[in-house]
Amino acid sequence: MNLDIISIGDELLIGQTLNTNAFWMSKALNQIGFTIRQQTTIADTEDVILSALENSLQHSDVVLVTGGLGPTNDDLTMPTLNKYFGGSLKRDQKVFDHIKQLVTGKGFEMNENNQKQAIVPDNCTVIHNANGTAPGLWFEKDGKVIVAMPGVPYEMKAMVSDEIIPRLKKQFVLPEIINQMVYTQGMPESMLAEKIADWENNLPETIKLAYLPSPGRVKLRLSSTGTDRLLMQNYIDAEIVKLEALIPTYIYSTDNEDMAAVVGTYLNENKLTLATAESCTGGYIAHLITRIAGSSNYYKGSVIAYANEIKINELNVLQADLDAFGAVSRAVVEQMALGVKQKMNTDYAIAISGIAGPTGGSEEKPVGTVWIAVATPDGISSKKYVFGKLREVNIQRASITALGMLRKEF
Amino acid sequence: MNLDIISIGDELLIGQTLNTNAFWMSKALNQIGFTIRQQTTIADTEDVILSALENSLQHSDVVLVTGGLGPTNDDLTMPTLNKYFGGSLKRDQKVFDHIKQLVTGKGFEMNENNQKQAIVPDNCTVIHNANGTAPGLWFEKDGKVIVAMPGVPYEMKAMVSDEIIPRLKKQFVLPEIINQMVYTQGMPESMLAEKIADWENNLPETIKLAYLPSPGRVKLRLSSTGTDRLLMQNYIDAEIVKLEALIPTYIYSTDNEDMAAVVGTYLNENKLTLATAESCTGGYIAHLITRIAGSSNYYKGSVIAYANEIKINELNVLQADLDAFGAVSRAVVEQMALGVKQKMNTDYAIAISGIAGPTGGSEEKPVGTVWIAVATPDGISSKKYVFGKLREVNIQRASITALGMLRKEF
Repeated sequence: MNLDIISIGDELLIGQTLNTNAFWMSKALNQIGFTIRQQTTIADTEDVILSALENSLQHSDVVLVTGGLGPTNDDLTMPTLNKYFGGSLKRDQKVFDHIKQLVTGKGFEMNENNQKQAIVPDNCTVIHNANGTAPGLWFEKDGKVIVAMPGVPYEMKAMVSDEIIPRLKKQFVLPEIINQMVYTQGMPESMLAEKIADWENNLPETIKLAYLPSPGRVKLRLSSTGTDRLLMQNYIDAEIVKLEALIPTYIYSTDNEDMAAVVGTYLNENKLTLATAESCTGGYIAHLITRIAGSSNYYKGSVIAYANEIKINELNVLQADLDAFGAVSRAVVEQMALGVKQKMNTDYAIAISGIAGPTGGSEEKPVGTVWIAVATPDGISSKKYVFGKLREVNIQRASITALGMLRKEF
Repeated sequence: MNLDIISIGDELLIGQTLNTNAFWMSKALNQIGFTIRQQTTIADTEDVILSALENSLQHSDVVLVTGGLGPTNDDLTMPTLNKYFGGSLKRDQKVFDHIKQLVTGKGFEMNENNQKQAIVPDNCTVIHNANGTAPGLWFEKDGKVIVAMPGVPYEMKAMVSDEIIPRLKKQFVLPEIINQMVYTQGMPESMLAEKIADWENNLPETIKLAYLPSPGRVKLRLSSTGTDRLLMQNYIDAEIVKLEALIPTYIYSTDNEDMAAVVGTYLNENKLTLATAESCTGGYIAHLITRIAGSSNYYKGSVIAYANEIKINELNVLQADLDAFGAVSRAVVEQMALGVKQKMNTDYAIAISGIAGPTGGSEEKPVGTVWIAVATPDGISSKKYVFGKLREVNIQRASITALGMLRKEF
């Protein structure tokens, strides 16, 4: 079953905004059994929209369109689709009430633009937008489905997950697709590939393997397409058992969870608590932990000690050790971990100090040098890493690595 | 002058790889004056490639194709283009020598696949690939240019910058294009549009306006295409002056900077310092600040007080106020701001306390309720916001809003 994605917006065509919508939708729709035939990105003008739509309808059963549904003058998708499908515009009371609730809830008055967003074509099914004012529009023609959605990523994502996917599953008979993730940490892609080469070469033909490296991690994806989901999953599970025997300490999840979730689940289930002390990662570890709902059950807080005086005053780091070894050193990072653990009275603590870059490096301690310490109920361990030159990547890698070090203590 | 981009590869269509190539090329080619008409992403099969190419050639003068140029059997772009342009394949000695140098330089022997990559169509200009073995192919037909390039990002980028752009500039007379951003914060898109409607309607015909909303912000883009860059910039600057008079407190940058950068630049230039105390945003504000290189000049650190006991012990929040008003209250958030400001001895401090969700809300304080306080050298101000239901979006919006509140104090 073919599916096309049309993304509308000049910001995509001038290289101002990266098209994460098409990427996310492709993954989500592929997972439920659709073959994504084409992604098309175009400007918000009537003739271009119509031409892309006609091209897609020639080859695909479903066309998902995002963008151009806002209330402002540069948004032309809705009138264009309405014209194409030969409908006329009417006011939708349910949409109006929802918009009113959203707008007045934020303390604003309904204005003309808000009113305008409740005007929709009369020949489509209106799809609820739980997180915004522009509704989705579901058209059908000759057994094919065309859905227009807002381009704001979090609005579109909720709409696809909660509304579009359930409806598409009801309307089309789709093959089963399994994409099973195996999360690994601690081995670069090239080494990992070598280590598991025999296993990879002996995978059953029905299982496809992909390597997905990201800073600090390599995810493996085992994919299978067919009709018998249980059988497919059994085959995949059997291969993961073999893989776990090959690289036992490197796999941290086979459950689509990220590292902070793995750590959080363990702490929560064992009624244990965690605090962090961050220098070079500047709050990113805390963010990874606290973006998980329920993290307040086990995460007490952090001291982000960007300046040395904060390390001394708030974390009881010794001035003498800062002078002797520098902020990026085993002595300092261990004192940071113990300091925050004691201060916040937790079972575990993570501390990080490093040189994220682009400046601040030296011959002895180049950019990317990071010390990480993990304090546990039984003691403390620490390790030095040398990552790369890119600040943002260093922040990410150091954070994931620190959470990985904590996981190994459980 | 229209330009199309065709990206070839299954990894893009199953949502495994984000299409950063199309994004990067769009920006680079738009900057030298091309109008990117369409980005198309397709699988590596002959009929699909030909259909996309024909569609693009109907509307555009230049078509840039990436991917499918590798040496293996599933790479069909080269034979397909060769067939389409009616050429025949020949061995290119210069390409062969380059491949041999690359392969043997890495300590490998030339194999069959390497040999194959020196076979190219005889009716195109072969483009040097400084960083890889697959050459680029430059075809011309009826005054139009079609270039096929490898999909490996760093190979493609060097080829575009060093070879393709200089040749295109020589071959086509290109207009000047300006895309000027205006960053606003504090007003939703629909209200902003109403507020600036008269200004928008009276924009010169040569200036095109677009609204780009994201959590907590709306970016406005003023675009202009012409021949006299200076004159165009003058027109745009004049309009921005009018806009600033209309919504003075809502614009935080006209310089492509994000909010944390705007705040950081001010603090840095005025030798002022900042600390933060975060509860519901859990380190995300600190991360936004510290991902900027050089932030250690003005940012001293943060106390992430996720647990109430940390608010009391580390930030001197009064137990009595926590009991009387709750953690999400003006009294508590102001004490947090003053506490961290004093503790870290800074000029400014931001504090946040709120309910990020999905649980923890009540009738009186629903999910999304956030109190933000900003302490300055002169005093303290605080404000309550009610954002939405999505945890991750609430964290982002609260963080951007807090930085925006700080900016307004400068």
